[in-house]
Amino acid sequence: MNVSTPLAVIVLAAGQGTRMKSSLHKVLHPIAGRPMLLHLLGAVAELAPAKQVVVVGAGREQVEKAVSGKGVDIAVQADQLGTGHAVAQARDALAGFVGDVLILYGDVPLVRAETMRAMIARLHGADAPACVVLGFRPDDAAAYGRIIAGPDGRIERMVEYKDASEAERAVNLCNSGLMAVRSDDLFALLARVGNDNAAGEYYLPDVVMLAALDGRASAVIETAASEVAGVNSRAELAGVEAVWQAQRRIEAMRDGVTLVAPETVFFAHDTSIARDVTIEPNVIFGPGVRIEEGAVIHAFCHIEGAHVGPSASVGPFARLRPGAVLGEKVRVGNFVEVKNATMGKGAKANHLSYVGDATVGEDVNIGAGAITCNYDGYFKHQTIIGDRAFIGSNSALIAPVRIGRDAIVAAGSAVSRDVGDGELRLVRAEQFVKPGWADRFHDAMRKKKEAAKAGEN
Amino acid sequence: MNVSTPLAVIVLAAGQGTRMKSSLHKVLHPIAGRPMLLHLLGAVAELAPAKQVVVVGAGREQVEKAVSGKGVDIAVQADQLGTGHAVAQARDALAGFVGDVLILYGDVPLVRAETMRAMIARLHGADAPACVVLGFRPDDAAAYGRIIAGPDGRIERMVEYKDASEAERAVNLCNSGLMAVRSDDLFALLARVGNDNAAGEYYLPDVVMLAALDGRASAVIETAASEVAGVNSRAELAGVEAVWQAQRRIEAMRDGVTLVAPETVFFAHDTSIARDVTIEPNVIFGPGVRIEEGAVIHAFCHIEGAHVGPSASVGPFARLRPGAVLGEKVRVGNFVEVKNATMGKGAKANHLSYVGDATVGEDVNIGAGAITCNYDGYFKHQTIIGDRAFIGSNSALIAPVRIGRDAIVAAGSAVSRDVGDGELRLVRAEQFVKPGWADRFHDAMRKKKEAAKAGEN
Amino acid sequence: MNVSTPLAVIVLAAGQGTRMKSSLHKVLHPIAGRPMLLHLLGAVAELAPAKQVVVVGAGREQVEKAVSGKGVDIAVQADQLGTGHAVAQARDALAGFVGDVLILYGDVPLVRAETMRAMIARLHGADAPACVVLGFRPDDAAAYGRIIAGPDGRIERMVEYKDASEAERAVNLCNSGLMAVRSDDLFALLARVGNDNAAGEYYLPDVVMLAALDGRASAVIETAASEVAGVNSRAELAGVEAVWQAQRRIEAMRDGVTLVAPETVFFAHDTSIARDVTIEPNVIFGPGVRIEEGAVIHAFCHIEGAHVGPSASVGPFARLRPGAVLGEKVRVGNFVEVKNATMGKGAKANHLSYVGDATVGEDVNIGAGAITCNYDGYFKHQTIIGDRAFIGSNSALIAPVRIGRDAIVAAGSAVSRDVGDGELRLVRAEQFVKPGWADRFHDAMRKKKEAAKAGEN
Repeated sequence: MNVSTPLAVIVLAAGQGTRMKSSLHKVLHPIAGRPMLLHLLGAVAELAPAKQVVVVGAGREQVEKAVSGKGVDIAVQADQLGTGHAVAQARDALAGFVGDVLILYGDVPLVRAETMRAMIARLHGADAPACVVLGFRPDDAAAYGRIIAGPDGRIERMVEYKDASEAERAVNLCNSGLMAVRSDDLFALLARVGNDNAAGEYYLPDVVMLAALDGRASAVIETAASEVAGVNSRAELAGVEAVWQAQRRIEAMRDGVTLVAPETVFFAHDTSIARDVTIEPNVIFGPGVRIEEGAVIHAFCHIEGAHVGPSASVGPFARLRPGAVLGEKVRVGNFVEVKNATMGKGAKANHLSYVGDATVGEDVNIGAGAITCNYDGYFKHQTIIGDRAFIGSNSALIAPVRIGRDAIVAAGSAVSRDVGDGELRLVRAEQFVKPGWADRFHDAMRKKKEAAKAGEN
Repeated sequence: MNVSTPLAVIVLAAGQGTRMKSSLHKVLHPIAGRPMLLHLLGAVAELAPAKQVVVVGAGREQVEKAVSGKGVDIAVQADQLGTGHAVAQARDALAGFVGDVLILYGDVPLVRAETMRAMIARLHGADAPACVVLGFRPDDAAAYGRIIAGPDGRIERMVEYKDASEAERAVNLCNSGLMAVRSDDLFALLARVGNDNAAGEYYLPDVVMLAALDGRASAVIETAASEVAGVNSRAELAGVEAVWQAQRRIEAMRDGVTLVAPETVFFAHDTSIARDVTIEPNVIFGPGVRIEEGAVIHAFCHIEGAHVGPSASVGPFARLRPGAVLGEKVRVGNFVEVKNATMGKGAKANHLSYVGDATVGEDVNIGAGAITCNYDGYFKHQTIIGDRAFIGSNSALIAPVRIGRDAIVAAGSAVSRDVGDGELRLVRAEQFVKPGWADRFHDAMRKKKEAAKAGEN
Repeated sequence: MNVSTPLAVIVLAAGQGTRMKSSLHKVLHPIAGRPMLLHLLGAVAELAPAKQVVVVGAGREQVEKAVSGKGVDIAVQADQLGTGHAVAQARDALAGFVGDVLILYGDVPLVRAETMRAMIARLHGADAPACVVLGFRPDDAAAYGRIIAGPDGRIERMVEYKDASEAERAVNLCNSGLMAVRSDDLFALLARVGNDNAAGEYYLPDVVMLAALDGRASAVIETAASEVAGVNSRAELAGVEAVWQAQRRIEAMRDGVTLVAPETVFFAHDTSIARDVTIEPNVIFGPGVRIEEGAVIHAFCHIEGAHVGPSASVGPFARLRPGAVLGEKVRVGNFVEVKNATMGKGAKANHLSYVGDATVGEDVNIGAGAITCNYDGYFKHQTIIGDRAFIGSNSALIAPVRIGRDAIVAAGSAVSRDVGDGELRLVRAEQFVKPGWADRFHDAMRKKKEAAKAGEN
């Protein structure tokens, strides 16, 4: 492959997506927490293309916003006149560009950079084919267009399913629609594609036939059906998500991560997990998570935008939100939420706590039910807790507030003023005792309940 | 089909269900949160039958209670003498009835009204068969009775597996047991069924053979094996639940609902979900739920008897109980329980709260750990919170209590008296400060620990 | 079978396990919460062997510690010279032993005692074979060594996959590696095994060939492939866990337990569940759990070391930790943690509570957000609550503390002194009211927000 040939990528994203029944553009529905179009552009970025053009129809604004700042040109296909017509809309955006063109689909998001590279390499390989088509062999070839090719991958012809003979239908090599072709060939061939068919559409695959009429062969290369799975419905969206998750789980286990029940763990596109991490069943990762060696993520955790240090223990039933940074051996237990907070080595928040907008020192113990009151309805405020401080159960730290090293906040205290180093802060009202009161209350209430019941009858 | 022919439905539910190992009657075990017998009667109701008879054996009281008020007659089969004998027990309940009879099974709960209609229509169709039998083709025909039929569905004979020849066993069209037959034919034929067999039982399928002896053919119509899956064990119960859930998930996605991991979402029989709702993994719906457009149900939610408004956000780790009504854009976050409470547009309860028996105004902010104390041990009381009120973290609202619009309850306050509009309520005791106390405490306790340890040795 | 023949078991556990990418020894990775080596030794224990030898290589200390007190000898294989060499390392530990030897693998943990017994019985059965080899027929025989045997199980030869002819590869009876052989035969044959092969290793299966050279036949018995699944990677670990869980779920359902979604319930090796218990989706059991008849475990529960009484209700979103003992009809609800605590008949803790190191009487009501403050940073202390006491919402019981029978602790109280029988304890500070304060605060803050926003621009 001549690496110096410039590359342009055209991503078709003009389909209506009506079967999605959504006001969100089809190519923006997420896979692993990331819009599917961005998955595809992520792989494309590995090829460092000179140009990227996304062809959109309805919902242009949504797509434009999603790709803004990524060096992507938008071309508009106002009318849905077929894939050939859609690609042709990229002509202006590619004016002056000379090089290879890769045609991708916004709703076929799992194509790997490696496969894209193989397509381009083939374009520059033996016989210099006019077009390189990406084929696949599905379990059920169904109504896909078929590719009739020789054993060397040289394409004899491509047929739509409805036009295929019995013999052609028996072939299970199918056309994914993805194609690599030189820019000068592409637009010259497209200009010759007609719409003399039942749908009145311009079909991209016709360029293969038109090249053949010129005596120029095209070539097919193959990939796994799962890689070119497309999304036209929510069920297919779930299917592509499942393919992605299954691959990611295998990678995690190969890297030395224990997944007790792999099928119950859901990764985001950028989750990073070190070896000898154990992940129990039912754990969900949002974007931006890094877990270090030896950490244990117990069952029923939801972790997003968080960094979990070595040998830390999280959950069960813990939620780490963006900005949670847990040091070595930190323990975050059940029904605890940590957000935008750093917890020092050995710190613990084991039960029913909310730790938000806080800096927690080493070996701090945050008692059950303790809460950082970080919000006054208008602004968020910080809580700073010194090393080895002990925050009693059910206490409320009303930010901004600073608790000193080795300080103790007594259980049930609402602390609104700073607590010094090694100081005890006790917020405690008088304990009123009313001997016999409860007995009298029970008597009265039982009578009231009986009266109420009698009244019902 | 002659729509004016009256219909009677006989549901057989007299089986012992011993393999269930349960004190609950087999046909009352739930599928999707609803007793399986009621699933079946729900489909039956679409046909508006003139009569419904459930034939029970042991556990009559349980079944009677479950169907009370549904216009169902109970017939008792005291001894278990076979399916033919069971159907015969419905004779008295159908005295005077003339019309079509549909014979169903309480432990075959997923049969659709559409299939029932097709059976009845066939009874009135070409050749007017004596009986219409519902057949299916399982992956593994195993020991099911076989139906030997012509290509037109005319039944030549029906054979029990144990009496079948090799050739007959090779046929994979099996008898579901469901049957449609005219009332006058039914009881006349049943009267001729004998029990001259190894088990000494009266077999319902014998009516087909007896009709044939009279020169009257019967017909089979077919349905999917999953529709006639029966329940004789807890494993089969789980299997039928899985079939039901799988179908429901596909329906939801077809309707424009995103299920990130469909296999982890469990619907109830009556769950209603609008388009463009996203449901993350591990969400469980109990009965009586409605979710409106654009709402997001985050992972790990348990929702029952609740109404979630448009663009609301629920979870992760939220529980909505019966009577929870969330307005537009309401946010209910992690470790929050809402019960019998209305939350106005834009209200938030994001962390560790219990909101019960309450009316919460628009744009109210309920802080972390805030709790409505709705129960005094005898009665439940109401909490009313005005628009834009701010309920501080870790506060307790002791019902009955009313918080005014724009009011503020300070963090950590236990509020037992009403708070006026725009008023601040602060329940705060003195903050006792003991400088150096904690340092001295730590010293003393460390020594005590060391002493305790020394004592152990 | 001659039951009086003594038995020795050799467990090979010297593999490096490099594909696990773990600092934990491969055979100590858990299945169902128990190191896989201990699963195997648990089955072995049913055979009451006279001797047990585990042959280890690297990581000896970890293994030694895991089996300490179980009557296991450790033998060391310093160099990895093959399975024959590994078994030979057990010679010293078995010095003086005469009887049957069973050779097992620490990374093949699911072999049942029943299968082990069958292997030994075969050794003493017809023809008294020299060796008994355990074979299996995988779906994909892949690169396993093949066993060429007659219909009577008499082994003709065993071939490594790489040495096998096409015809031999077509045989799908594979060698699990497990073997039973008499002690005198074993070491005599092993002494003759050579390492004249590409890897330079001593192969255990060669003893079969060597016995054959002496005119002594060996026999194969077969078992299911799932029973001899081995663990060489985290993916295989997950696979063996899945096999174990699937079997356990079927057992539970057969015993009369309802699993609404069996695939979402994870048992530990010793979970005990009575009939008519219902387990909703997403429930995880750690070791040491017993659930009694009629209890309901709602969705999203994590239960370990706990005893749940008859007709108790747990969850959704509950965590029971070791020492939790729930009496009859106890209710533990959402976001509640119970640890080392006994709850009497009919007691309730329905919302957002932590009940630790406590003795809770009958019919006690623990309000939402109530917490036992059991830890002072150095020692744990007990909370004792009498029958029918009412613990108000958001209260903190500061242990050690005793609450009398029928006593009432008012909502929001932090109780540090004992409360007598039938007494009311109310810890409540003054309620400060500042009419109009909130309105003024809102005005000021809105201005501040606007100013801050203006400053940004």
